[in-house]
Amino acid sequence: MNKTVFQQIVKSILESNSIMIFPHVIPDGDTIGCASALKRAFTKIGKKAQVIDEKDIPDYLKFLTQDYEDWEEFQQDQPDLCIAVDCSDLGRLGERKDFFLTGKRTVNIDHHPTNTCFADLNYIDDKASATGEIIFDLLKGLNIQFDPFIAEAIYSAISTDTGSFKYTNTSTKSHLVAAELIDMGVDLNEVSVELYQNTRLEKIRLEAEVLETLEIICDGKVASAYATEDMLKKTGATMNETEGFIELLRNIQGVEVAIFFKETQTKEIKIGFRAKQYADVSKIAMKFGGGGHVKAAGCTINDSLDQAKKLTYQATEEMFRKLQE
Amino acid sequence: MNKTVFQQIVKSILESNSIMIFPHVIPDGDTIGCASALKRAFTKIGKKAQVIDEKDIPDYLKFLTQDYEDWEEFQQDQPDLCIAVDCSDLGRLGERKDFFLTGKRTVNIDHHPTNTCFADLNYIDDKASATGEIIFDLLKGLNIQFDPFIAEAIYSAISTDTGSFKYTNTSTKSHLVAAELIDMGVDLNEVSVELYQNTRLEKIRLEAEVLETLEIICDGKVASAYATEDMLKKTGATMNETEGFIELLRNIQGVEVAIFFKETQTKEIKIGFRAKQYADVSKIAMKFGGGGHVKAAGCTINDSLDQAKKLTYQATEEMFRKLQE
Repeated sequence: MNKTVFQQIVKSILESNSIMIFPHVIPDGDTIGCASALKRAFTKIGKKAQVIDEKDIPDYLKFLTQDYEDWEEFQQDQPDLCIAVDCSDLGRLGERKDFFLTGKRTVNIDHHPTNTCFADLNYIDDKASATGEIIFDLLKGLNIQFDPFIAEAIYSAISTDTGSFKYTNTSTKSHLVAAELIDMGVDLNEVSVELYQNTRLEKIRLEAEVLETLEIICDGKVASAYATEDMLKKTGATMNETEGFIELLRNIQGVEVAIFFKETQTKEIKIGFRAKQYADVSKIAMKFGGGGHVKAAGCTINDSLDQAKKLTYQATEEMFRKLQE
Repeated sequence: MNKTVFQQIVKSILESNSIMIFPHVIPDGDTIGCASALKRAFTKIGKKAQVIDEKDIPDYLKFLTQDYEDWEEFQQDQPDLCIAVDCSDLGRLGERKDFFLTGKRTVNIDHHPTNTCFADLNYIDDKASATGEIIFDLLKGLNIQFDPFIAEAIYSAISTDTGSFKYTNTSTKSHLVAAELIDMGVDLNEVSVELYQNTRLEKIRLEAEVLETLEIICDGKVASAYATEDMLKKTGATMNETEGFIELLRNIQGVEVAIFFKETQTKEIKIGFRAKQYADVSKIAMKFGGGGHVKAAGCTINDSLDQAKKLTYQATEEMFRKLQE
């Protein structure tokens, strides 16, 4: 928390006329919630504000992006201010990186501890459960009146990034901000229906296929399952829609490590790992050239699915053996 | 909210020595969270406090019930105070009803609008998202110092009864109380692992079977699935473990009504209905002698599964036809 930078960002916004807001690639609820709240808020105080998105908004977030515009033409004029939200590095802006850097001033607002501070003004608070919490403070610092849309956008940011207040990043502040946002007019039915009751039928059909592949090993401490290109063809789902399946495995009673295999091409298996309480799955992922965090990691094995299973099971069993020593 | 009753309950607790706390049958997180918080809190201020439970605590709540004792012997002495938590009527106490009524004084603390006010002192607040919110206020009214266990018990009550802050009963106050409880030492990792990462493997296997039965009708507006006794035998799951499956169906994009069939015996089909936004499923359930709320209702049809599907599909289609008129 750096009050000087915060005040400089407030000043930059007030001094700017055209402001471009950049969410990250493969957007999630936090980055879109922040971008939508900022666009609405800046417009309210007379700025020309646009969201420069990758045009790949997932269905469950479309209720927040109705007023996003085609932005190609805006690239002609140099914007006064470009703001990246929830982006830990410039790579998270994908093809839009160069446009971002054309801003007379650039701002980077984020909560990832690994943020590379790539802008002129960088406000990074890794204590924030979501970048949405920082945007909440920023709009208050700007004395902008919240309306129900802004409140819902920020509520969505915090709700999705905390797994609906279940993940351990959920803090006292997450709940205090959520309380204030509900007071400001969040329609919780709308938000819940859009964010959490919006599963594509194809994804449910894929889930049924994937659950058929469930394997339990290591005396019940490890659960695994997989998705293949054939399953995608059969169900019409996309590989991105396997998101969340690994948590279903980890949520099984007694399971400490969940492993999920995605057969993206012949001989290219992408593998995700999750730990529940005490295991460090980043160590398993690193054995195969991958990495990640203690409780969430991943790697790629260029071999058959069977071989990928064999190798990762061995590594996982070895990890549990070492833990028992 | 009745301040006089609230103060009378506070006074009754302070004046009592032995206090018996009654959760409801088929206990959920709210009733157990409240009971566990009260037992701990009353013990802290020197009372003889016991939870009189049905001895059917589900696994995901056992982290809150470690200090529950065998209570048969306590039935000998007339307790000074008996408190029912989260029970809308005496029937919710099951076999323990008579024991409850032996209390020199009886107290009923609840948030269900249908509460029948069956005790000497009845404190019912249907604005509370969970009875846990009321217990939070009660312990403050008693000037009892919260410890992390009490905080986790009440947090669990509110978290489970609001679907982890997703249901529309979630209020400003739910979040404000949650914020304060986290400050008081809730271990969110422990609470989340116990409450939400504790699915029996048998239930996951049943889910795979059930998802195979998924049907989409009425131009995608209705999703249905079923569970049979045969599936329970095959997977080792219980019929109670179908809880939550109907929400999976309702959460499908475009689905307004979800229908779930439980073939509990030959020719006894229990049917659940859920609506997402605008349909009133209580009307469908009532056609078959059932009932419930606008968005959650149920009925029983004493016929074959095929016949039950046919009848409810017809009634649902008719409802949609009428909505379009």
